[in-house]
Parts: sequence; C-alpha cells; structure tokens
Amino acid sequence: MNPDLAWPVWCGERQRRVEDLLVRVLPAADLTPTRLSEAMRYATLDGGKRMRPLLAYAAGELTGAAPEIVDAAAAAVELVHAYSLIHDDLPCMDDDTLRRGKPTCHVAFGEATALLAGDALQALAFAALAGGELPDPAGACTMLAEAAGIRGMAGGQAIDLESVGAKLALAELETMHRMKTGALIRASVRLGAACGRPLTEGGARALDAYAQAVGLAFQVIDDILDVEGSTASLGKTAGKDTAQGKPTFPSCIGLAAAKAHAEELRLAARASIAPFGSAARRLAELADWIVLRTL
Amino acid sequence: MNPDLAWPVWCGERQRRVEDLLVRVLPAADLTPTRLSEAMRYATLDGGKRMRPLLAYAAGELTGAAPEIVDAAAAAVELVHAYSLIHDDLPCMDDDTLRRGKPTCHVAFGEATALLAGDALQALAFAALAGGELPDPAGACTMLAEAAGIRGMAGGQAIDLESVGAKLALAELETMHRMKTGALIRASVRLGAACGRPLTEGGARALDAYAQAVGLAFQVIDDILDVEGSTASLGKTAGKDTAQGKPTFPSCIGLAAAKAHAEELRLAARASIAPFGSAARRLAELADWIVLRTL
Repeated sequence: MNPDLAWPVWCGERQRRVEDLLVRVLPAADLTPTRLSEAMRYATLDGGKRMRPLLAYAAGELTGAAPEIVDAAAAAVELVHAYSLIHDDLPCMDDDTLRRGKPTCHVAFGEATALLAGDALQALAFAALAGGELPDPAGACTMLAEAAGIRGMAGGQAIDLESVGAKLALAELETMHRMKTGALIRASVRLGAACGRPLTEGGARALDAYAQAVGLAFQVIDDILDVEGSTASLGKTAGKDTAQGKPTFPSCIGLAAAKAHAEELRLAARASIAPFGSAARRLAELADWIVLRTL
Repeated sequence: MNPDLAWPVWCGERQRRVEDLLVRVLPAADLTPTRLSEAMRYATLDGGKRMRPLLAYAAGELTGAAPEIVDAAAAAVELVHAYSLIHDDLPCMDDDTLRRGKPTCHVAFGEATALLAGDALQALAFAALAGGELPDPAGACTMLAEAAGIRGMAGGQAIDLESVGAKLALAELETMHRMKTGALIRASVRLGAACGRPLTEGGARALDAYAQAVGLAFQVIDDILDVEGSTASLGKTAGKDTAQGKPTFPSCIGLAAAKAHAEELRLAARASIAPFGSAARRLAELADWIVLRTL
C-alpha cells in the first residue's frame, strides 16, 4: 500500500493480483466436468479491465484494509460480473457473438454449457465471499446478493429488456442503469470498504455518493463508446445498442450532453471523497480512469 | 416440535410453513420490474412437495433447533431448487413445457425473463441464508454455494448434458446424480442440522450417510416415475428421459432392480440414523415418504 506509487503501477499491480486470485478461485481446467470448468475459466480469465475489483481494493485502502483481506470481495464481484456477461450474451438476451475480443461463451461452448457456467460462477462468487477473511462475511453475502438480485443487476436487466424500442426519460434511464450496472459497482466499493475500519455514518454516505456517481459515469461512457468506438477497440460488437433499439444516454440526451454528463459525474465523484484526503487517492484516480480512459 | 404428531400432520404443518415463508422472502408481485417478480413467484409458489425444506426441518429437530432458526435454510434450499428447475426447463437444456402441472416459466414469461428469474432466485437464496438466524450464516453460505456450484448441482447438470445418448455404468450414473440432485439434498440436511447443537463427528457422519442414501433414493424413484407415471400425475412430461436418450436407473439396471435399489437405499438411510433414536423420527419418516409415496 505504498501511497507514492504512480497510478499505472498501482493499477497494473492490482490487475495482476486479481488475475492470480481468479486462477486460484476458479476450478482447475481438468476438474470434471471439464467442459464446464473450461467455460468458467474462458469467460473469466485473460480479459476485462477488472474495474470492480480495483474499486474494492481502492475502497479497502480508504479504510486501511490489507489487500489480502479485500481479495475475497474482489474475486466475488468479478465472478458475478463474469457470470452476468455470459448470460447477457445468450441468444435469448442480447444474442452477442463477441466479448473481450473473443467469441462469447455460448459461441465457444454451446448455450447449455454457457448457461451452467454462469450459474456456477454465481455460486462460486458466494463461496469466495463467504469463505473470505473479511470482518463480516455473512453481511458481505447479503450485500452481494442484493446487488445481484431483483433489486439490483437482475432487475436492471429485466427493465433493460422491457425498454427495447421505448423512449425513456433521463430519470428512467438512470434508474435502469443504477440497477443494471450501478448496483454491482456500488457493492464493489462497499464490500472493499467493509474490509477495514468502520466508516462514520457521514463517511459511508460520502463513499456511497462516490460509488453511485462512478457507476453511472461508467454506463454513460459505455453508451458513448457503443456509438464512437470500433468493434476492434471495444472487443465487443460496436453500435449494438442502436441496432437493438436500446435507449442510451446519447439517444436520450444527445452525444455532446452525454459527454458533459459523464464529466459532471466524474467531478461529483471526486468531490464526494475529497474530505477523505489522500486516503481516497486511488478512488479519485479510478474515477478519472473510468471516465477519461476512453473519451 | 410435538414428538407425538402423526407424520401427515407434521408434514402438512411444515409444508404450510414453507409456503408462508417463501411468500415473505420472495419479492412482492408488484415490485418493479413486475414481470420478473411475477416469474420468480410463479416458479416458486403453489407447487412442489418442499422435500428439501422438510429435510432441513427434520434435521433441525435432530439437533434441537427451533423451526424459526431453520427457516432461512429451508427457504434457501427451496429457492435454489426452484431456480434450477427454471434453468433446466429452458429450450437449450431439457426444453420442457410442463412443470408442477403448469406451463414452465419460459413458456409463461419468455426465455429471457425465465433466465433472469432463475438468476435472481439464486441470489435471493443467498440473501435469505446470509440474513438468517442460524449460528454460522457464512459457513452456511459456503455449504450452499458448494452444493449449487460445479462440484454439485451445476456440475451434475453438465455431466447429465454430456451423457445424453451414452450408456453409463451404475457407478457413473450414481456420480452424476450425487452431484445433480444429491448435493442439494445433502446440503438441506446439513444446513438444517447446523441450526442446532453441534453433532459429534460420528453423528455428523451418520447423518451424512442418511442424506446421501435419501438423495440417491429420490433420484432412483424419479427415474422410475418417469417410466411408470403419467404426465397428469407427475405434473411434468412423463417418459422424457427415455425420449431424450438420458441414462436412468431403469435403463441402466432394469426396472425391477431399480425398485429394489430404492428400497435398499431407504433401509440404509433408516439404519444410518437409527442410533439417534426418537430424535431422528422425522428423518426416518421422510425416507419412507420419499421412497414409498409413489411406487
């Protein structure tokens, strides 16, 4: 936890840490049934920016938690994320064929195996979290379950499905994203922070405001990239929101306003954690990384 | 916990208890997104014998746990079971249209909503368990996650998929079922028992032997019913294992031998818990109920 490390060094170190951790947590490639083990590994390893684990480690630094204590939370949120991508890409959902520059899990392994790989990854996330060394593993499981369930990610996905072809108001669009991607991002921050010293009520509120702003900013950027990015640079099919008639920030408020909104959210996120001073350094850098990396 | 209640009274009381409990734990029908709430309720309520919760309550009686303490475990195992049925019935899996006498979840709500309903029910199971009053909720979450994941139910499902059209030896068939249905049944018993006084090492082993025998007996009976039952009496499509070329106990060892095997397992289950005396009364009655109810 060297406070003087430059951001790219800290970020790279943590990304490698997550990779090693996931290799240890995932079933060995030769575990029977091997096709399922391989599908779980394929969809989780060697790809992804590991944003959610990075948020957990950064929040852990805020409350003085050692990375070894945050590991379980970091693995759990990434496993839930990986499972959600597999299920999102299935033909009955977004029906996508490219993810992280590779064929999607069901293209590589078939639909049934992909479905089960997602299911097994969700279970593995709870196993990792419940078996972790964080102070209140049961409380952490409750937090993760709420973020993943109908009041969080799964509920947001369902609203997303219902919204295809609809014209949403900005507030409705934000509600959808607060659940679909925001809930797990928020849980990543809360779980990381829960690994260290308890925050004051005001501190917890400030951190939560940060998490909500970052979560929404992430989605705004994601929507912008779907318009401006290329399939090669994204590693997933570009332009698919528009092609599928999904409401997005650019379609709802225009591209320029979406960019301005992302910048506002970045500044709001940074302002929320400013009172923590240098203890929140990595969280502030993460807000920049999420919003600025790709515009 | 009146020890003199006749079996049908005890069983009916506990089944009603589970029903009330699930109604409380599931999202209200008007929770947004309502289509997802409805699908979760549709697939979970008003159906099912609630065998897994009954096993949890019976094991809880063995270790002196009050039903209120067992409730979280009972709800959790039934929610995992309900989620697994939704995903099993999907077109990419068993492609079934009838379950508990009703159209399957994806027939009633569409594939995407059914997929998400299963996903959200799995998350809800962990929320129920982690928020419960049992002595070690984190340990309980680990147990449930292992039973649901690649080393348990999801792994067994994957083996089941790979076995279509194959001729399995009895040992391979038993391995598949020990994972596919046995793991969750075993977890139901272990979770229920974990709600009360700790068992001795020998006691835990005896209870586990019971759980494994009952779990396998349940599957043997299920296979027999698929051959002998009618679609109307089963509430699900009869004869589908044979139609789909799935290996079953009757196809592997013959119908008469399968029946004899189920009876052996019932007696083995009862013998395992005989040393507990009258404290194991409900577990013994459950073994009878599972094997004899339907032959």
